[in-house]
Amino acid sequence: MTTYDVAVIGGTGPQGKGLAYRWARHGHRVVLGSRSAERAQQAAAEITARVPDASVSGAVNADAVAGADVVVLAVPYDGHDDLVAALAEQLAGKVVISCVNPLGFDKQGAYGLDVPGGSAAETAAALVPSARLVGAFHHVSAVTLWREEGYLDHEDVLVCGDDADAKAVAIELARAVTSRDGVDAGRLRIARQLEPWTAVLISINKRYKTRSGTAISGLPH
Amino acid sequence: MTTYDVAVIGGTGPQGKGLAYRWARHGHRVVLGSRSAERAQQAAAEITARVPDASVSGAVNADAVAGADVVVLAVPYDGHDDLVAALAEQLAGKVVISCVNPLGFDKQGAYGLDVPGGSAAETAAALVPSARLVGAFHHVSAVTLWREEGYLDHEDVLVCGDDADAKAVAIELARAVTSRDGVDAGRLRIARQLEPWTAVLISINKRYKTRSGTAISGLPH
Repeated sequence: MTTYDVAVIGGTGPQGKGLAYRWARHGHRVVLGSRSAERAQQAAAEITARVPDASVSGAVNADAVAGADVVVLAVPYDGHDDLVAALAEQLAGKVVISCVNPLGFDKQGAYGLDVPGGSAAETAAALVPSARLVGAFHHVSAVTLWREEGYLDHEDVLVCGDDADAKAVAIELARAVTSRDGVDAGRLRIARQLEPWTAVLISINKRYKTRSGTAISGLPH
Repeated sequence: MTTYDVAVIGGTGPQGKGLAYRWARHGHRVVLGSRSAERAQQAAAEITARVPDASVSGAVNADAVAGADVVVLAVPYDGHDDLVAALAEQLAGKVVISCVNPLGFDKQGAYGLDVPGGSAAETAAALVPSARLVGAFHHVSAVTLWREEGYLDHEDVLVCGDDADAKAVAIELARAVTSRDGVDAGRLRIARQLEPWTAVLISINKRYKTRSGTAISGLPH
């Protein structure tokens, strides 16, 4: 297993903190990034309280990104483009994994937003052309990641991207979450399908009062 | 179990014929619809050869629809709008299940097309406002439906629609395919996610040389 230096931008939010917890527990070195270094350090302390030997710290976003091999964007879509543009210099050349779900909510429930660049992941790639963008981890429940202990081994992490090596990093990082490799779902533009699929799961959750996940059948697990 | 009179428009294509075979085997009365009555009857004969006591016949589309409670649109997206418009009179008031996948293909593989009406299912609903539109059965492999015998019990049929009773019909018809109820995935507009999801599965199939399917975890199966 390769151990990565992972910066989780949006690391104080439920999705980012949940993923960071899983990676820290799996031996990766994690820095949580936030607009506020204090809030990032606080969230890091929450993880350390649960995983005493974890390598977890908190920093402002730019500092978190600067020291990382792999940057995970676990931020709301609202403000995403500005945030990526502001970090463009630090993101250059890095593996960047976007977990961003551009969703809207109305009386009928969740729905996929129209994204001018096709998907959040493609938008980030256009903003930082040298970054090696991957889309992954869109569908895992933040609540389950953080509150439960076990692997999410009934679901799959779907990974898309145009850079095979960058994609391999996300495929490996999935092991900390589902206990198995992520599933290579193809080119970066497949993020147009992966991102709004979260609306389907939210809709199922509401109807069945559950936390649903997506599994791919027909693979040699 | 309720037994339905099901018309499968596009019943000579691989997806339509595969679904018709499963429903006929499960005791539903099926009429395959095609532009050519002869081709429809030929496909019906192929099903009868495999399921001798099945109630299966073939007819031109308008006749097939006229005698059915439930109409399944298993046609290519190319030409879909004209076909639905031409059958508007016969479709009025009926349960109409759209399995249509608006996909394009290029060097990078399959991708979801921009659909002016949001999705094929919503477009059909707009063309025939009194029809009770449901989106379902987008993801089941045509090859597996027709060539294999067993239930596709490692995957789920996702069902969306705005008419609860119509949705219940599709949820029940899923049993003939997966051995269990379809999954209620919410409102009709969720078809915007269900239809192009097929591009993800095609992409995974290419990468892993398999026939993948989608299963939802976290449900009480």
